[in-house]
Amino acid sequence: MLARSIEKIAMAAKAASRLTALAPSRLKESALKSAARALAAAKEEVLAANRSDVGRAKKRKLAPALIDRLTLDEKRVGSMVLALEEIAALADPVGEVAAEWTNPAGVRIQKVRVPLGVVAMVYESRPNVTVEAAALALKAGNSVILRGGSEAVRSNTALARILSRAVSAAGMPRDSVSFISDTDRKNIAVLAGLDRWIDLLIARGSERMVRAITRMASVPVLGHGKGVCHVYVDGGADLKMAEEIAFNAKVQRPGVCNAMECLIVHKSVSKSFLPAIGRRYREAGVAVNGDEACRALIPEARRAAGSDWAREYLALEVSVKVVDSIERAIDHIHRYGSGHTDSIVTGDAAAAEKFLREVDSAAVFHNLSTRLHDGGVFGLGAEIGISTQKLHARGTMGVRELTTTKYAARGSGQVRT
Amino acid sequence: MLARSIEKIAMAAKAASRLTALAPSRLKESALKSAARALAAAKEEVLAANRSDVGRAKKRKLAPALIDRLTLDEKRVGSMVLALEEIAALADPVGEVAAEWTNPAGVRIQKVRVPLGVVAMVYESRPNVTVEAAALALKAGNSVILRGGSEAVRSNTALARILSRAVSAAGMPRDSVSFISDTDRKNIAVLAGLDRWIDLLIARGSERMVRAITRMASVPVLGHGKGVCHVYVDGGADLKMAEEIAFNAKVQRPGVCNAMECLIVHKSVSKSFLPAIGRRYREAGVAVNGDEACRALIPEARRAAGSDWAREYLALEVSVKVVDSIERAIDHIHRYGSGHTDSIVTGDAAAAEKFLREVDSAAVFHNLSTRLHDGGVFGLGAEIGISTQKLHARGTMGVRELTTTKYAARGSGQVRT
Repeated sequence: MLARSIEKIAMAAKAASRLTALAPSRLKESALKSAARALAAAKEEVLAANRSDVGRAKKRKLAPALIDRLTLDEKRVGSMVLALEEIAALADPVGEVAAEWTNPAGVRIQKVRVPLGVVAMVYESRPNVTVEAAALALKAGNSVILRGGSEAVRSNTALARILSRAVSAAGMPRDSVSFISDTDRKNIAVLAGLDRWIDLLIARGSERMVRAITRMASVPVLGHGKGVCHVYVDGGADLKMAEEIAFNAKVQRPGVCNAMECLIVHKSVSKSFLPAIGRRYREAGVAVNGDEACRALIPEARRAAGSDWAREYLALEVSVKVVDSIERAIDHIHRYGSGHTDSIVTGDAAAAEKFLREVDSAAVFHNLSTRLHDGGVFGLGAEIGISTQKLHARGTMGVRELTTTKYAARGSGQVRT
Repeated sequence: MLARSIEKIAMAAKAASRLTALAPSRLKESALKSAARALAAAKEEVLAANRSDVGRAKKRKLAPALIDRLTLDEKRVGSMVLALEEIAALADPVGEVAAEWTNPAGVRIQKVRVPLGVVAMVYESRPNVTVEAAALALKAGNSVILRGGSEAVRSNTALARILSRAVSAAGMPRDSVSFISDTDRKNIAVLAGLDRWIDLLIARGSERMVRAITRMASVPVLGHGKGVCHVYVDGGADLKMAEEIAFNAKVQRPGVCNAMECLIVHKSVSKSFLPAIGRRYREAGVAVNGDEACRALIPEARRAAGSDWAREYLALEVSVKVVDSIERAIDHIHRYGSGHTDSIVTGDAAAAEKFLREVDSAAVFHNLSTRLHDGGVFGLGAEIGISTQKLHARGTMGVRELTTTKYAARGSGQVRT
């Protein structure tokens, strides 16, 4: 695809964004509901396109986990329909007055929530991202440009076509949803350079992909972050609760960013706690990489290498460290963590508050599994990813993170003196 | 200066930032007050250093406007002391709970305001930026690294030394304020690449400097934006008010970003309005670049070139355009403006609301001079600049824009199912 064609798509999206931004809440809601109905009605078309993607993926011998993420069935399409309905029903953030005051000269100042303009999204594998990203961006009053991975191109093309037709038939601007079906990698670099037309680029995929896009982009980028998440079992922990949390955080879904990668245990409870969690891990097939104190209590643990502490395993593998104080636990998290999600298990309120206050991560938890850092669990509706950046959006990102604010001030002729 | 030395400064700032972030409000307030006293007491030392900068600047025949921005006197040092006292007295944003709710599983979730960590600031000329940037960053609980321009290096070094000594004597970490006195340009590139230690880089200077830094940086950058600001005099305007606003916005201080650069006039009032404002501009020495309709009413107006519409004159020069509808005015602003500050003058409430809603700028005004877009005027205390970006901070940036948020969630053993 020529760079010029991608720029044309972006220019059309920008032109449409002036109208998308002004769309009344009811129009956005009904457009998304009508997209939900259209998707439910076109289920067969989507499944046929997906079978073709999956067939190619199998022929190319892609990894089974990737093929699983790619594969759609009736139930998964049903979840997409549901996501569209849920996003349709979310409160509209556009027009919210975030702050309002009058200055001494009598100027009435408001900080008003407004759409960003044009949001582009670059992502991999899972076709549901096409639907959720488009719906969240539209709900926030933005035009959206989607560029999915090559392995899902037929599924994504079908989904984007169904969505785009449905929302424009419902009265949204025709160019408010665009899809780039040419999966040449060069297209990402072109998109990332169009800061004149694109207001935000969301990168959702591997850490390497997010870093590469951030480095090349002149468009501001929000990246789904790497998760080296910790659970710290404090001396004051309820050890049964700690066991459930340390097991759930590692095992319930190891391939995602909010899964725990490193378990830290206070030495005062290590003798009672580590053998028990070690058994649970062994039964579940979790490989343990431990320091010396851990290996004395979990005999099958491998010796942790220096590089283990910062690793995002995304698999049934965990590093385990024994510390002699909460300060050492917090230091370890700052040194090796990725600032994603870190949890303390303790019955000691002072220790809990110290941990919540001092650990500088997107989410800090007390007596909770790290797996709970999720827009759905938090009650924000769908999420577009979890950010480990500190600017603009930190932690789970929902529809509000796809907006910005502007100052609107009303006066009666005031000037500067 | 070796890249290694700059990295050492950044590493020390990062280490200090863990303590700076936890500094109680009272400590930050008393440290800034003690900096104010120290600066008042060391006035002579600052003025002597400044005389040396000004002497070199005159020898190097720098532009008079630059020498004026550089020059300090008793009154200007007094304003810095006052700024320190005002920033000390601002409300502490750290620890504010921005949102709080309980999810259906009984997890209590808070979004808490926290410091960014390490804020670096690259700026030019005016020595007061050293004082204000350091004070705002500290107030928000950050460590700060300052790198000012070569022309003000002696003034800045003296100011930074006084500040840094005073705040550390008051109990803040020694490395919470650092100053890079070597003004080799390469240092900026080194700073901009230290994303491991620096959380935010603020660039305040010419548009070219801000763009260059944004392009080279791996650290997130907030730039003080270019201001191509408009005043639109609507058909329903009180023409006397419009004249005062159009005069003030252009003439009161033409060299700054919130000065008006383009005046747009509805044709229904152009015949009464343009000759009058034309006279005022002539008397004040403002050069007018107009379209044909303007030139018919302001005879001395030069013909506006295509490039005039997007120019940030920063001088006693203005472009003037006559339009036949508010829609044309809004289109013009979107096409040529920089998204900084745009104002409508009108008595027609519907026109005003349309303008405020549809113009996509950091600040949109009704019956106000664009010069009022300012942290001080808005009542936010000191400002660290005005952003025309859409991510993180838009419009005037104060102490809150130097913070981020984190999620703090408290549970009783909940896990993901």
